[in-house]
Amino acid sequence: MSPFPSSAPRADAWRHLRVTTEDGVATVTLARPEKLNALTFGAYADLRDLLAQLSRERSVRALVLAGEGRGFCSGGDVDEIIGATLSMDTAQLLDFNRMTGQVVRAIRECPFPVIAAVHGVAAGAGAVLALASDFRVADPSARFAFLFTKVGLSGGDMGAAYLLPRVVGLGHATRLLMLGEAVRAPEAERIGLISELTDEGHADARAAELARRLADGPALALAQTKALLTAELDMPLAASVELDASTQALLMKGEDYAEFHAAFTEKRPPKWQGR
Amino acid sequence: MSPFPSSAPRADAWRHLRVTTEDGVATVTLARPEKLNALTFGAYADLRDLLAQLSRERSVRALVLAGEGRGFCSGGDVDEIIGATLSMDTAQLLDFNRMTGQVVRAIRECPFPVIAAVHGVAAGAGAVLALASDFRVADPSARFAFLFTKVGLSGGDMGAAYLLPRVVGLGHATRLLMLGEAVRAPEAERIGLISELTDEGHADARAAELARRLADGPALALAQTKALLTAELDMPLAASVELDASTQALLMKGEDYAEFHAAFTEKRPPKWQGR
Amino acid sequence: MSPFPSSAPRADAWRHLRVTTEDGVATVTLARPEKLNALTFGAYADLRDLLAQLSRERSVRALVLAGEGRGFCSGGDVDEIIGATLSMDTAQLLDFNRMTGQVVRAIRECPFPVIAAVHGVAAGAGAVLALASDFRVADPSARFAFLFTKVGLSGGDMGAAYLLPRVVGLGHATRLLMLGEAVRAPEAERIGLISELTDEGHADARAAELARRLADGPALALAQTKALLTAELDMPLAASVELDASTQALLMKGEDYAEFHAAFTEKRPPKWQGR
Repeated sequence: MSPFPSSAPRADAWRHLRVTTEDGVATVTLARPEKLNALTFGAYADLRDLLAQLSRERSVRALVLAGEGRGFCSGGDVDEIIGATLSMDTAQLLDFNRMTGQVVRAIRECPFPVIAAVHGVAAGAGAVLALASDFRVADPSARFAFLFTKVGLSGGDMGAAYLLPRVVGLGHATRLLMLGEAVRAPEAERIGLISELTDEGHADARAAELARRLADGPALALAQTKALLTAELDMPLAASVELDASTQALLMKGEDYAEFHAAFTEKRPPKWQGR
Repeated sequence: MSPFPSSAPRADAWRHLRVTTEDGVATVTLARPEKLNALTFGAYADLRDLLAQLSRERSVRALVLAGEGRGFCSGGDVDEIIGATLSMDTAQLLDFNRMTGQVVRAIRECPFPVIAAVHGVAAGAGAVLALASDFRVADPSARFAFLFTKVGLSGGDMGAAYLLPRVVGLGHATRLLMLGEAVRAPEAERIGLISELTDEGHADARAAELARRLADGPALALAQTKALLTAELDMPLAASVELDASTQALLMKGEDYAEFHAAFTEKRPPKWQGR
Repeated sequence: MSPFPSSAPRADAWRHLRVTTEDGVATVTLARPEKLNALTFGAYADLRDLLAQLSRERSVRALVLAGEGRGFCSGGDVDEIIGATLSMDTAQLLDFNRMTGQVVRAIRECPFPVIAAVHGVAAGAGAVLALASDFRVADPSARFAFLFTKVGLSGGDMGAAYLLPRVVGLGHATRLLMLGEAVRAPEAERIGLISELTDEGHADARAAELARRLADGPALALAQTKALLTAELDMPLAASVELDASTQALLMKGEDYAEFHAAFTEKRPPKWQGR
């Protein structure tokens, strides 16, 4: 399905994640409910490679990241990850921590919107996965805890010290990363950490609706919107304006823009092709 | 009036905008009320050149940008702009999109504060003109819609993917630019998109009052404040602190600073010269 | 006490500040209550050198910055500073303004969290000292006023035009720095300028509690969290993720991380060493 396939084979199954795809919407479920979906080395590696594969293949136009059971994700598994890292050497520790960061970069850089469907706990790496997503659709049971300092580590993990100030401002970000305290849904909404607050138990359903809507929309325009949001956080104004200009010039040559005008003229809804 | 006049003649009238000036306050009105002040090629070009002329001449100390009729600005005209761009070649498309970006850069970089007086719709390019302004004075009828994806284009248009995350945070910005939904006044105020919420129908009057107050203030200090806000979004902390230091050293050699001290000592209000 | 002592003698007393230290918590009090703790040349210089000394010595794990009497700090003294700067030459003005900026850089870059305990007025340079701190613990009497333009100077002073947009967003920051109006506690909390709002008269006590909690925590992890928050405001995403990875790899070799795992396994609270 990739427009530019290489010789590398594709994975058809993911052992550490549950992945389903339906008409352009991928749903990735962290599915170790007995462990509050604590992340393992395999889960990180699968997320990294799944996002890379989906980015290459261009078959997915929106992705939902959800958690099975009582919560979204309790973060790195205390036994399987914290215990194991204690006996790793320096090179292994770098490999592990770079892998977790690659997952965050993959979420920010993949050419489709990522929607975290959050209920219950989103802690540690789980909170950062939600933070890196484009949308956080959460129900009132959601609580985010960037609890890295509580295990003796830096609150800046997987890009959290970069992302959180840009989402909620430096003051709130400092408080959340330094103290590691849980942020419940009302505060999370107030400070801009939640994109949409749903009724209790409806985060997954609303996330699926949003993903469907995005996947049925002008996918190339949405992918470029995401790419510009990600890139322009790191760019000055003048360069950003130039990037916007060349992006719009490109999209104005595309089919969806012509389709909008035709539909508008004919007073009908547009049929988006994602081109 | 320019301190450093060139041979270029100045425009005395603007065909595509209504421009009035009174004692240092320019009021620029988008005045196609029958089209909800939809922008035309001419309006963009006039905004670009008017802001350049005012920046050179140094006769204006504050500028109000307003819309006549039922709303502020509905964005690029569907017929005149979207229709026309469909038959443009690549170079023409780049020229057009760079021009719109130049308007935004001119608003951010002109040496006087710009106050958008918003009532009713501020959509597409109209929303970005308000976003790029230093102040958004809005009444309860205001609604902002960054609806670029709804026409098949990128939400990053005219610097919106740069500016909006820096005004409302990355989470809200992603939602607004991806979905293109209208943000009504209460939400706009809550997320920091409105500078001052006025009573119904009072946006223009309050914007004029604010412009008057700014124009009567220490204009050079205000211009430098704006310049530093614009520049330091793109600068690291150490360089920003150095820029602040040299700016203050310069202003401490100025007349307004001495005037403040004299007025304070004499227990009278200062008479600002803008020098 | 410095891990790498040089030949430079250390100061044992600070003439322009009241400094006490107790078990890793330094409390620095601006103590000219008859002048609302207006800052003098000596106070700036002492803050600069005190923070440098504490950063070298590594004996302090948290610092509270407080004001004695009716308010936190009214900013630079009108007589002693504004009056004096009027007769300074260019080099002297640069020296002064660089010194004030060095204080802000020292607050942002020192290897321990800084907590501003704010009651009453925090104006001008006083507002920026609070802004540069990691936490602003304030009571309902607190009011912040970035009133530089009211004395004919730039609102960008001591890094305010860099910091304030990153704390409250560009819209609010523009309004506060341009107009110099007081922001009272409820608005300050709403826009993210306050970290914790306390009961009336309890800012100092709550700041001391927070400092104690931080000083008793995993100090190296907290210092690195602060360092990454400061650094990553000025870094792109990819580099930030790499910095996080190497920081965590380093801390995973540290004693506090092992102690967390031992304590968790033994179901007891961890005993942090700050190593």
